[in-house]
Amino acid sequence: MSLGAINYAGPMPRWQPDARGRLQEAALTLYREHGYDNTTVAEIATRAGLTKRTFFRYFADKREVLFAGATDLQELFVGEVLAAPASASPIEAVAAALDAAARWFEPMRSYSAQRQLIIAANPELHERELIKLAALAQAVAQALRQRGVADPAAILSAEAGITVFRVAFDRWVDDANRQPFQQLIGELLGELRAVTAA
Amino acid sequence: MSLGAINYAGPMPRWQPDARGRLQEAALTLYREHGYDNTTVAEIATRAGLTKRTFFRYFADKREVLFAGATDLQELFVGEVLAAPASASPIEAVAAALDAAARWFEPMRSYSAQRQLIIAANPELHERELIKLAALAQAVAQALRQRGVADPAAILSAEAGITVFRVAFDRWVDDANRQPFQQLIGELLGELRAVTAA
Repeated sequence: MSLGAINYAGPMPRWQPDARGRLQEAALTLYREHGYDNTTVAEIATRAGLTKRTFFRYFADKREVLFAGATDLQELFVGEVLAAPASASPIEAVAAALDAAARWFEPMRSYSAQRQLIIAANPELHERELIKLAALAQAVAQALRQRGVADPAAILSAEAGITVFRVAFDRWVDDANRQPFQQLIGELLGELRAVTAA
Repeated sequence: MSLGAINYAGPMPRWQPDARGRLQEAALTLYREHGYDNTTVAEIATRAGLTKRTFFRYFADKREVLFAGATDLQELFVGEVLAAPASASPIEAVAAALDAAARWFEPMRSYSAQRQLIIAANPELHERELIKLAALAQAVAQALRQRGVADPAAILSAEAGITVFRVAFDRWVDDANRQPFQQLIGELLGELRAVTAA
């Protein structure tokens, strides 16, 4: 047995390049092929060529694989709202955050579309998504208050922004639609302004 | 033993005047006093002077006592959106529904305020509330589509309306605030228009 063979056939190394990404991709594939309910953590780990132990180093359970990005997204939103110029109106600060979020998501269109289908097919996941989005709106409202925006302007601007984000997201992941996420955000902000003014 | 005594001390009659309302009130009192998690259906029924069997004629479980009005509310919203004049813009049709909902809730301010506190204190109930409100927004959007409103105007108008409803509701049940719900709805619709235009 050569040293090379030992290296390749030996025990799984503790560190794997992009283990997190591989687990996410494996989970998504299995959820799509066999359904979310029928997939186990062990199957996800095997599919990714990793162990259950490695899975649990990255994710609390099989549901969290799909929501691991929520914290990053919330940090991005809050950071952008706080970083907007002092002269920006509340909705302009929110629009800056939406724009940054759209650029963040753009390279993940295929993953996002698959994730969306899985979530839409499972009420438990759909609930979880609603909760994460409600928390995101609250975090954005809080960031606006830190900028000195009073309520109800803070909460209304935040909620309006998250509504635009959700509707734009649905259109962006739709196969028939090939517009960049950023462009959809801009259009829908304009549409929201038009419908509320009517 | 007189006939009267038999009548009053005999087995519980099958029908009780406003058994539903009494169960709702008893549930709310117990959830407030002992917490939602610590209250059983048997306790609610006893407190209302009714049986568990009667409870289950009205509600599927102790959670549904708090959400029994959601179907009525959705029917009211959809009915009002569909009944709005043909000349009404999407947001005007939604505003008419919000106005009707505000009038419907106005006599239930104290109940609504207590219910809100219980829901805010319990993540499971808070999730359920989010789901009901998301379903309400979808139903309103669908009613707008039936009026011939295209997307994204239909979904954006519906979501904007439900946002205004939620924010107005929170202010209406707040003790420090004694404005009629209808007035708050009107003000917040104006505020939403102002923030999206800014």
